[in-house]
Amino acid sequence: MKKLKMGMVGGGIGAFIGDVHRKAAAFDGKIELVCGVFSSNPEKSRKSAEQLGLPPDRSYESFEKMIEKESMLPKGERMDFISIVTPNHLHFPPAKMALEKGFHVMCDKPMTLTLEEAYDLVKLVKKTGKVFGLTHTYTGYPMVRQAKEMVKRGDLGEIRKVVVNYLQGWMSTQEYIDANESAWRSDPKKSGIGGSLGDVGTHAANMVEEITGLRISEIAADLTGFGKNRILDDDGNLLLRLENGAKGVMSYSQVATGDENAFSIRVYGTKGSVEWHQERPTELIAKWVDAPKQTFTPGGNGTYAESTAFTRVPPGHPEGYFEAFATLYNNFAKEVMSVEAGNPISKEVEFPTVEDGLRGMQFIYAAVASSENNASWVSLKE
Amino acid sequence: MKKLKMGMVGGGIGAFIGDVHRKAAAFDGKIELVCGVFSSNPEKSRKSAEQLGLPPDRSYESFEKMIEKESMLPKGERMDFISIVTPNHLHFPPAKMALEKGFHVMCDKPMTLTLEEAYDLVKLVKKTGKVFGLTHTYTGYPMVRQAKEMVKRGDLGEIRKVVVNYLQGWMSTQEYIDANESAWRSDPKKSGIGGSLGDVGTHAANMVEEITGLRISEIAADLTGFGKNRILDDDGNLLLRLENGAKGVMSYSQVATGDENAFSIRVYGTKGSVEWHQERPTELIAKWVDAPKQTFTPGGNGTYAESTAFTRVPPGHPEGYFEAFATLYNNFAKEVMSVEAGNPISKEVEFPTVEDGLRGMQFIYAAVASSENNASWVSLKE
Amino acid sequence: MKKLKMGMVGGGIGAFIGDVHRKAAAFDGKIELVCGVFSSNPEKSRKSAEQLGLPPDRSYESFEKMIEKESMLPKGERMDFISIVTPNHLHFPPAKMALEKGFHVMCDKPMTLTLEEAYDLVKLVKKTGKVFGLTHTYTGYPMVRQAKEMVKRGDLGEIRKVVVNYLQGWMSTQEYIDANESAWRSDPKKSGIGGSLGDVGTHAANMVEEITGLRISEIAADLTGFGKNRILDDDGNLLLRLENGAKGVMSYSQVATGDENAFSIRVYGTKGSVEWHQERPTELIAKWVDAPKQTFTPGGNGTYAESTAFTRVPPGHPEGYFEAFATLYNNFAKEVMSVEAGNPISKEVEFPTVEDGLRGMQFIYAAVASSENNASWVSLKE
Amino acid sequence: MKKLKMGMVGGGIGAFIGDVHRKAAAFDGKIELVCGVFSSNPEKSRKSAEQLGLPPDRSYESFEKMIEKESMLPKGERMDFISIVTPNHLHFPPAKMALEKGFHVMCDKPMTLTLEEAYDLVKLVKKTGKVFGLTHTYTGYPMVRQAKEMVKRGDLGEIRKVVVNYLQGWMSTQEYIDANESAWRSDPKKSGIGGSLGDVGTHAANMVEEITGLRISEIAADLTGFGKNRILDDDGNLLLRLENGAKGVMSYSQVATGDENAFSIRVYGTKGSVEWHQERPTELIAKWVDAPKQTFTPGGNGTYAESTAFTRVPPGHPEGYFEAFATLYNNFAKEVMSVEAGNPISKEVEFPTVEDGLRGMQFIYAAVASSENNASWVSLKE
Repeated sequence: MKKLKMGMVGGGIGAFIGDVHRKAAAFDGKIELVCGVFSSNPEKSRKSAEQLGLPPDRSYESFEKMIEKESMLPKGERMDFISIVTPNHLHFPPAKMALEKGFHVMCDKPMTLTLEEAYDLVKLVKKTGKVFGLTHTYTGYPMVRQAKEMVKRGDLGEIRKVVVNYLQGWMSTQEYIDANESAWRSDPKKSGIGGSLGDVGTHAANMVEEITGLRISEIAADLTGFGKNRILDDDGNLLLRLENGAKGVMSYSQVATGDENAFSIRVYGTKGSVEWHQERPTELIAKWVDAPKQTFTPGGNGTYAESTAFTRVPPGHPEGYFEAFATLYNNFAKEVMSVEAGNPISKEVEFPTVEDGLRGMQFIYAAVASSENNASWVSLKE
Repeated sequence: MKKLKMGMVGGGIGAFIGDVHRKAAAFDGKIELVCGVFSSNPEKSRKSAEQLGLPPDRSYESFEKMIEKESMLPKGERMDFISIVTPNHLHFPPAKMALEKGFHVMCDKPMTLTLEEAYDLVKLVKKTGKVFGLTHTYTGYPMVRQAKEMVKRGDLGEIRKVVVNYLQGWMSTQEYIDANESAWRSDPKKSGIGGSLGDVGTHAANMVEEITGLRISEIAADLTGFGKNRILDDDGNLLLRLENGAKGVMSYSQVATGDENAFSIRVYGTKGSVEWHQERPTELIAKWVDAPKQTFTPGGNGTYAESTAFTRVPPGHPEGYFEAFATLYNNFAKEVMSVEAGNPISKEVEFPTVEDGLRGMQFIYAAVASSENNASWVSLKE
Repeated sequence: MKKLKMGMVGGGIGAFIGDVHRKAAAFDGKIELVCGVFSSNPEKSRKSAEQLGLPPDRSYESFEKMIEKESMLPKGERMDFISIVTPNHLHFPPAKMALEKGFHVMCDKPMTLTLEEAYDLVKLVKKTGKVFGLTHTYTGYPMVRQAKEMVKRGDLGEIRKVVVNYLQGWMSTQEYIDANESAWRSDPKKSGIGGSLGDVGTHAANMVEEITGLRISEIAADLTGFGKNRILDDDGNLLLRLENGAKGVMSYSQVATGDENAFSIRVYGTKGSVEWHQERPTELIAKWVDAPKQTFTPGGNGTYAESTAFTRVPPGHPEGYFEAFATLYNNFAKEVMSVEAGNPISKEVEFPTVEDGLRGMQFIYAAVASSENNASWVSLKE
Repeated sequence: MKKLKMGMVGGGIGAFIGDVHRKAAAFDGKIELVCGVFSSNPEKSRKSAEQLGLPPDRSYESFEKMIEKESMLPKGERMDFISIVTPNHLHFPPAKMALEKGFHVMCDKPMTLTLEEAYDLVKLVKKTGKVFGLTHTYTGYPMVRQAKEMVKRGDLGEIRKVVVNYLQGWMSTQEYIDANESAWRSDPKKSGIGGSLGDVGTHAANMVEEITGLRISEIAADLTGFGKNRILDDDGNLLLRLENGAKGVMSYSQVATGDENAFSIRVYGTKGSVEWHQERPTELIAKWVDAPKQTFTPGGNGTYAESTAFTRVPPGHPEGYFEAFATLYNNFAKEVMSVEAGNPISKEVEFPTVEDGLRGMQFIYAAVASSENNASWVSLKE
């Protein structure tokens, strides 16, 4: 099997998320890294390329050069897609150029720095016919896929209520406070108008829409920056209304002291409900109006095929963060291969798309607008 | 030891909560039931009295007669306090009359039908110098007491955030839907302006103030009645702001399909946080900015004396709902005995008071006002 | 309703288990304490009686006098049964005398000091036709009753395997070590030949037979006394073989450092299995060969009526140790009332009996014999 | 960085464990697959090699040819080590030949078919000076490493007791029963004298010695084959005695209906204890004689550096089975690189070795011998 060739923007050695992307891309054997520009610091970028075993001529000084040069290489040799793992302000420029030069794109979230860029990207993806994927990691978990499928099949009845929390505490540590000044996440020019809102809040919003299959229609958001010297939000509480009349509540934070990555969601319908906790990712709890509580597991009894397709091992052997990430890359790769083989873009794909990225940016903008207006309701309609 | 004598209003045989009150009052051996009017239906009331082993002359036709007649009995024979376990609209009248006739009062929550009655009751309690207790059951749990003490001692640092959920699903069942029409809880004339808001929402609000020691200063509430034919709310999502600048979020429901009594609270401070789930009441999870997560248990290692005072058994032997209730009655009884012995009313007591009842009514009124104004902020200031 | 009259042997004020028995007996309103001898120390006994509100003439100097005198009181005034909560060596003598004098008996476990006494007691109960109950507390938990019923109805298929642990750690504490010398539990003359074996091991053995409905046919036991100066065992590991060919393993300890009351059991059949943990008593986990894991709760969806009969509150409101105990007293009281009303002894009762007590003693003797013979197999056949 | 070159024996496409080994080996970027013989069926082997992207001349017909041919390739081109993922009877022959021809070896467990082979392998490894690793996967989990380190540093005091369970239920399914006849695991000629004993029991035994740092000195084992037509054991219960006088109990099964991969261990010392459950691998529960229970997490607060070295992500982002496996390969690779660089074999390595493999075989032989002698004690001394 011929592997897809990946070029990377960002994620130099030492950057946590770059390593995750590389391991995840390689995991299922469909993708190989062939080139990259790993840092805005050329020396650091070069060294990263070397450590990653890339030939010197595939280590580039800038994403512009990389896209330019790679596009001139013969098909079969040049990269097939780029993976963008830079700070938020550097998502749009390489994505745009790559699409225009005929490359597919896998991009970290939030998708862009501004809402305007997000709209542009949606148009560009449509126009170019390329595949665009967004790494909302948590949608790659088998039990999230199971929850989505249960809603879709009507197992839970009509959805009425959603409770979603994404609670981290690392911004409460002295270590973080000391390091805060220099962090790009704290700088609106690099992070955008959302702080923790963009970092974790968008995951929560995406999860709500992913599992319920419903749009969030309006939100009322009360955002706070508790951290000393913190310009952007590090905490938020939101009321949600969904397009079908369902209601919800969201709480996210990065100053929820002592929480590590406590992302959880509960979705309630007229017939049943589901509950998932990211830190125990292999358990999907389902509760029923007239039957005992159940726990579904990846590949376990009663789990739907759509979910089991997201696992690689027998039930009871935990998969986690890397595998969820890998599943997104794997599904992205399948779609790229299909499109490269001449098929049209699929109507439904098993990874987040540019449309999800736009939803995320709409969410950020609506939340900030709401919060600036004392948590008044703001619509997420396009 | 002489036991306190209790008269009961409401709670005829078959009523769930009446039985709980009786068992709880009797549990620690300080209280005995001596008289009562157990139902507005005289026959049912009489039969209840008989089954409870009361002499016929202590089974009354109305609370008015009971209070009147008992007040004429010699001290030492007559009841010392009344316990009110009627529907909400019948809390204030017997409470008022009892206080005025010199009896102490233990009352179910929410305290009154209207906010005005609540203000009146506060004045009346102050004026009469009697002891007034309110059965916010969950404050009787040892691990709630532990959480409160940890906040009070500063273990968690400054409080920044609260996440509280009280999720039940029994109003989603067909059984409930069929029975809905006749339920007093669904009738604003008997229940007051809050539906599930009064039933479970007030517990959640009380818990926030109880543990944090902080007042909720304002709320934005989005209440919904999902049930067909439901006049009052059966679900609500709220943003909270506390007096010290802390933020919070509350979600309550009685249509959270499949949940039984999923009441949980998380309180986050600058140094640590605590998490408690009512359905696993013997575990208080504490998370720290710089140390591993801990689990405290009733009477277990490291648990404060103030909490251990709420337990009766060695660690690992679960106490539950009845014992939490009993602890409130026990602490109420101690205060009544102290006051009867000539001591002044204590400044701090270990059971919810008329002030907590007023806070609950303020919460209900603010939430309904907010919801009617599209979840705009409403102050809870007195 | 006329209450049953209870006389108590042992359990003076300050003794943990005496208080539990009294609260449990009183809980469901069927039993009242009318007399007792609460301590071998007459002064302590008298003071306990006084504090418990007993008239001086019902406070006795010895169990012999109590049984003698009470038996001469008119029916309707005299006690109906005695509750024995003394150290092990003082179980048999009052039980024997009470039965012979026409009283029913409720007794703490292990039932007797010696196996011979146990055989005698079985004969005596048969001969006198009195009701004899044994407080194997954990059989009073609704989820244990559910597990038993599931096995009985064949839901799990044929039973193949049992894994039971009863792990406490309080004998590891310095506090215990300091107090060790004087404890009756450490003295074979008062405790019998089993130490922790009798205290917690018998609960584990009883639970196996109670839930599976099968007899343990033989055991191989490796008992240890880890504690310095400890004469009796404080820890044991056992292989089990059941009468139908099922196999099992048991581990009990009171030096399992850090464990509070970690009693758990897993029962595996050909079609499914159940798992219960005493410290989370409201959850019975059921696992199936071909369906997702379920969690049953007291009174919750799918729970059998036989189990729900052991609860008093709606699902989600935890009951615990006291209520389990109370359920045994309640069921014992029903049987006593039935027998007093002239009915024959029931063939099946919902509380442990003298036969269960005998099984416990057989278990202790077999375990000690096995351990003394280097864990060779010893039969539990009668 | 130059990658180590891996040749594989067994694990053709479709074989679960082969895929796990390949993903795990590749995970941390230190190892690349360069050749292999993937099946005893040459056509299947060839196709597997093709799918894995190997050149035809590195796809071999037999392990003999592979080792022979590879040994003749120039250093830097030829494989550095072989990974053996065949059924048990095909572990020793390729391992032996590889070692003799100068290759390092990574081998699945149990290490050999017979105890004699195990002794031979120990000698051969010593003689050749090559690196030999054994994939006792679970030792690669960060929380297992943490437990080991806590024991080593004396945090738990002196070890007294171990409770270990490894419970799976997949042999209870109809699907398994139907497929049973042909499974190599059921055939003593391919599996060895242990059935589930070798498959899961050896993991349990290894975990006990790994965490406690103590040898199991003798065991009493009661093994059973419950499955119809099952020749070998599918279930076992064992008493354990450790070299320092500690006691323990083990239960393993593959007919524990409904359990997926319920591997858990509890280790008790005089000062504290630890508890780990493979299905929730990111939580290590520590309980103390005088302090509240703690939960350690990979890389979380208070976790030792030796454990954190086994993680790749921030706390709260679950790693699982693949990452544990990868950690073993990663640590094996480091040692191979060190040895290839001319360093002597390390005295302590962070992966299971040939000595652990021998212990596993001694355990199997002792357990079978004990069980054949009605669970009498058998020594594991070498």
